[in-house]
Amino acid sequence: MSKHFAKAVWKGNLPKGSGTYTLPSSGYEGRINFHSRFEDGKDSSPEELIGAALASCFSMALSHALDQDGATPESIETDAEVTLAKTGDSFSITEILLKTRGRIADISADKFNIKAKEAKENCPVGRALQGVHIGLEAELL
Amino acid sequence: MSKHFAKAVWKGNLPKGSGTYTLPSSGYEGRINFHSRFEDGKDSSPEELIGAALASCFSMALSHALDQDGATPESIETDAEVTLAKTGDSFSITEILLKTRGRIADISADKFNIKAKEAKENCPVGRALQGVHIGLEAELL
Repeated sequence: MSKHFAKAVWKGNLPKGSGTYTLPSSGYEGRINFHSRFEDGKDSSPEELIGAALASCFSMALSHALDQDGATPESIETDAEVTLAKTGDSFSITEILLKTRGRIADISADKFNIKAKEAKENCPVGRALQGVHIGLEAELL
Repeated sequence: MSKHFAKAVWKGNLPKGSGTYTLPSSGYEGRINFHSRFEDGKDSSPEELIGAALASCFSMALSHALDQDGATPESIETDAEVTLAKTGDSFSITEILLKTRGRIADISADKFNIKAKEAKENCPVGRALQGVHIGLEAELL
């Protein structure tokens, strides 16, 4: 079992206030605000973090699944695109699209696609995000 | 509707390989590896990012709910503790504990607790994380 820690501070109300989150492993502090989350601001957002978490978890899980299956994972690069949209009266994360590209020895494109689909469904962050549709595009380089 | 982007790269197999994630809003790059995720390493992990995402989303949602209810949110500070544990043959995020402290004018401690519980259940990231039990400790300062 392992424990992982993080922190956020929000000051003021939602439209005019602002906040930060801290990643204690490095001390990195990201800025969040209404504009960057719901419109087109340039600061960070909880959704950017969710995208990074899923892209990381998925890439690790896919590497492991390929290795266990006798392939040799050299590199797996995954982009995540997280959509936040109004649904009814509230905002929801409606979709996360993963686009992954793998440099893998000793594997067919079909097998790579199957393993990528399994990793999306089985990785811990993917299973935690049961309230979101996760899409996948996989390419063997 | 807003879109949010992130990226991860993993090189090598799971136990010996290593990776990074990128938060494009700032260009920040965090390091991930097996040891930091499943044992007690000092680098980042997908679970640290999930904790930061939920702590941020929850704090924003709670501020908004309090403001809408006539209270004046000055600051909301939330720590997240994410547990990754072996369940059966795989690893799962089994719990996220949120510990929040609010400096809020014009509100009772009871009302603050009720609003905190609602924010935990209704914020977009909380609803996305339907596969995880989310605990809450709330304190009005």
